[in-house]
Amino acid sequence: MTTSEARARLETEELQEKLREIQALLAGKGTGLRASLDALHPADIAYLLEALPPEERLAVWDLVKADRDGEILVEVSDAVRESLIAKMDSKELVAAAETLEADELADIAGDLPPAVIEEVVRSLSAEEREQLRAALSYPEGTVGALMDFEHVTVRDDVTLEAVTRYLRRLDELPGHTDQLFVVDRRELLQGTLPLARLIVTDLEIGVARVTVRDGLRLNPQDAAGEAASAFERYGLVSAPVVDADGRLIGRLTVAAVVDYIRQRSADTQLAEAGLQQEEDVFAPVLDAFKNRWAWLAVNLVTAFIASRVIGVFADSIVHLVALAALMPIVAGIGGNSGNQTITMIVRAMALGQIQDGYWGKLLARELGVALLNGVVWGCLLGAIAFAFYGNVALGGVMALAMILNLLLGASMGVAIPWLRSRFGRDPAVGSSVLITACTDSGGFFIFLGLATVFLV
Amino acid sequence: MTTSEARARLETEELQEKLREIQALLAGKGTGLRASLDALHPADIAYLLEALPPEERLAVWDLVKADRDGEILVEVSDAVRESLIAKMDSKELVAAAETLEADELADIAGDLPPAVIEEVVRSLSAEEREQLRAALSYPEGTVGALMDFEHVTVRDDVTLEAVTRYLRRLDELPGHTDQLFVVDRRELLQGTLPLARLIVTDLEIGVARVTVRDGLRLNPQDAAGEAASAFERYGLVSAPVVDADGRLIGRLTVAAVVDYIRQRSADTQLAEAGLQQEEDVFAPVLDAFKNRWAWLAVNLVTAFIASRVIGVFADSIVHLVALAALMPIVAGIGGNSGNQTITMIVRAMALGQIQDGYWGKLLARELGVALLNGVVWGCLLGAIAFAFYGNVALGGVMALAMILNLLLGASMGVAIPWLRSRFGRDPAVGSSVLITACTDSGGFFIFLGLATVFLV
Repeated sequence: MTTSEARARLETEELQEKLREIQALLAGKGTGLRASLDALHPADIAYLLEALPPEERLAVWDLVKADRDGEILVEVSDAVRESLIAKMDSKELVAAAETLEADELADIAGDLPPAVIEEVVRSLSAEEREQLRAALSYPEGTVGALMDFEHVTVRDDVTLEAVTRYLRRLDELPGHTDQLFVVDRRELLQGTLPLARLIVTDLEIGVARVTVRDGLRLNPQDAAGEAASAFERYGLVSAPVVDADGRLIGRLTVAAVVDYIRQRSADTQLAEAGLQQEEDVFAPVLDAFKNRWAWLAVNLVTAFIASRVIGVFADSIVHLVALAALMPIVAGIGGNSGNQTITMIVRAMALGQIQDGYWGKLLARELGVALLNGVVWGCLLGAIAFAFYGNVALGGVMALAMILNLLLGASMGVAIPWLRSRFGRDPAVGSSVLITACTDSGGFFIFLGLATVFLV
Repeated sequence: MTTSEARARLETEELQEKLREIQALLAGKGTGLRASLDALHPADIAYLLEALPPEERLAVWDLVKADRDGEILVEVSDAVRESLIAKMDSKELVAAAETLEADELADIAGDLPPAVIEEVVRSLSAEEREQLRAALSYPEGTVGALMDFEHVTVRDDVTLEAVTRYLRRLDELPGHTDQLFVVDRRELLQGTLPLARLIVTDLEIGVARVTVRDGLRLNPQDAAGEAASAFERYGLVSAPVVDADGRLIGRLTVAAVVDYIRQRSADTQLAEAGLQQEEDVFAPVLDAFKNRWAWLAVNLVTAFIASRVIGVFADSIVHLVALAALMPIVAGIGGNSGNQTITMIVRAMALGQIQDGYWGKLLARELGVALLNGVVWGCLLGAIAFAFYGNVALGGVMALAMILNLLLGASMGVAIPWLRSRFGRDPAVGSSVLITACTDSGGFFIFLGLATVFLV
C-alpha cells in the first residue's frame, strides 16, 4: 500500500461520525468536504464510499484528489470498485493506475479496460513489468497472488554498519518491514535480518553472523491458506517468497494475510448462504438477483426431489394425515444435526486435524453422537406425537425415524467432506445444501416408509 | 508469546509429515521422538497435539520438556488444553504457569485449579500481579482482554542516540515490536517511534521531533472487533492501549488480532450450525452431545410449531394430498432466500455499511429482489405443479404462495437483524434458525391457507 503516514487512524465509531459529518456537508453543499476528505486515510475513504448510497458515493468520489484515486480503488470492495470505475474516463484511470505498485495493479487489473492496462504497462519499467507479469501469473488462492515486491534486501558479506548506512539513504522503509532479506552474491536467499536484531547488535558484526536461517520460506505456488496458517501459528509480520532455486522474488506480509483470512471467511459464509459473491448493499435489484439465483435453483432441484419422495407416499398420507404434519420435524432435525457434524468436520479438516487413518474413528464417533441424540429426541418426539394423536404406533414410528435420520445425517456429514476432499474439491462450499438435501429426502423417505409399513 | 527464535518454521504440509513421523516413532517406541519434539516450535507442538487421538496425545505430551509446557498450553485449543491439564499435577501446573507472561496467564487462568493460580500469583512481582489483575478485569471481546504488556517505551526528551543505546542494553526486543511507544515524564503517551524511522534517521535528532502523533490509540474497553477492523484497514503491526487519562497501559499486536479474527469467524460458523463451541474431534460422544443439544432443542421447538401449523390444515391435505408434497418446496426456498438476505445484511452491518437512516431503503431493495425471485421461481414451480397434478388453480396457488413466502423471508431477513441490534444483541448468532422458523411456519401457513381458500 502506498503509505499515507501523516493521516489520522480512527476507530470504527469515529468513522461512523465522519460518515454523518460528510453526509451533512454533502447535503448543505458545504465547502469543507474536500478538506475533510484530504485528511482521511485511503482505507477510510474506501470505507465511507462503501457505506454511501450511489449518488452520494459518486459525489464524494468526484471530490477526492485525483492522485489518491489509485490507492482508494485498491482498498474498496470489488462491487464498489466497479461502480467507481464505470464513472471514470480512460485518462483518469490511467493516471490512477500509474500511481500503484505492480502487485496492487495486478489486484485491480481485472476491473480495468484492456486499453487502460496497455497504456499503463507501457509506462512501467522493465522490472515493474516483470513483477506485474509475475503477480498476474499466479492463480487466486496462491502465495504468488498475495505477495508484494517491496522487500529490502542486503548482502550477507557486509557489516551491520554498512547495512545501517544503506538504510539511511533509503529515507523511508516500506510498510511491514520487520526484517531485511539477506541474499548472497547470486541473489539466493540466505535468511533474514530482523530490524529488532539489527538495532540491538554491535555494528561491526557481519550480516552473515546474525542472519536468521530457519525462518519460514514460501514458494509462490504454495496455497495461501497454508501460508496464512503459518503466519498465525508463528505470529509473523513478513516472510520471503523464493523460486524453486531459492532466489528471492517477493515477500508476503501480515497485512495481505489478514485481508486473505477476512475475505476467505466472508466467502465461506456467503457461499453457505447461497450468495456467489459479496454484494454492494446499494446495488440494483437485478444485480442482487444475478448474485443469488444459482443457489436458489440448486435448492429448487433438491426441494423438488424431496417433494417427489413425499408424492410416492400420497396414499399413506391420505390414510393418516398426521404424517404430513410430523414429517417436517423428522427432516428438519436431521438436517440440523447433520449440519453440526459437517461443520465440525470441515473446520477440523481446514485446521489439518484429520488424518487419513482417522475417518473410520470419526464416523464411529459421529454415529455415536447421532444415536444418543436420536434416542433422546426421538423418544421425546414420539411421546409428543402420542400425546397429540393418541396413537402408540405412530409415536414409535416417529422415534425410530428420528434415530435413523440422525444416523443418516451423521453418515453423510462425514461422507460428504471426505468424498469432496478425495476428489480435490473444497469440502466447505455447498456443504449445507448437500447435507440438507440428504436429510430432507432421506427423512421423508424413512418416516413415510416406516409409517406405510407399520401404520397404514 | 515466549519466543523460540531458534526453531524452524514449517508450512502445513511439512507439519503433516512431522505428524506421520511422530506417529511412526510412537508406534516403534523410537528414541528419536524427544529430540524431534525439541526441535519444533511450540505452536507446531500444539498443532500436533490437537491432531492426535487421546492416548497418542498424552504420550507425546509426556515427552515434551517441562519448561515448554506453559507456552504450549497457551497455544492449544480450549478443548485440548482441558485434556492436557487434567493429566498434570499441581506442581507441574505451577511450574508451567510460572513461565508465562501476565497476559498469557490470564488467557489460561480459567482452566487452572484455583489453588494453582493462588500459588502462581504469589510468585509474581507487584507489577506482574497488577498486569494479571488488569488482563483478567476486561471481559472477552474487548481490547483489554487481548492486549499484552511487552511494549518498549522511550521518553520524548532524549535523542535517538540515547534510544539506540538503551535498546542495545535490552539485548532482544519483544516480538512484534515495530514501534516504540513515546511517553512524557508523566507516562502520558505522546505517540510512537517506528523502528523503520529510527533506523533511517540521524541519531542526534530528538525523539519528540520524529514521534508519530496521529497513530491509532486504543482504550481497553474498546470492542475487539472494531480494533481488528482498524488493524485491517491500516495494516498495523501494533498499537498502544491507553487509559482514560492517556497513560500507556499495554499494547495490541497483529498476532492477537489474527487470533481474534480466526476465533470469531470460527465461532460464527459454529454458532450458525448450532454448536456452542469448538470440539476436540477426539472428545468422547457425551462431550459432543452436550455441545450440540441446546440448538437441537431450539430447532425442535420451531419444527414443532411448523408441525402444528400443518395440523390446522389437516382437512385440506386429506382433500388434496398434493399439498403435502408441495408444501416443503414453498417453505424450503423461502428459507434459503431469507438466509441470503439475512447473511448479506449481517455482514454489511459487521462492516459498518448500514447506517440508521437506510433501513427503509434496504427493506425496499430486498422486497424488490424477493418479488423478482418470487415471480421467476413461483411461475416455474406453478408450471411444474400444474404439469404433475393437472390442476391450474393448484399451480396458481403455488406461484402466489412462493411470492408471498419470499416476501416474508425478505422482510424478516431485514427485521430480525435490525431488531436484534436495536436491543444490543449480536445480529449474527442464531440468525439462520430464526429466519428458517419464520419461513417454515409462515410458508406452510401461506400455502395451505391459500389452498384452503381457493382449492378446497
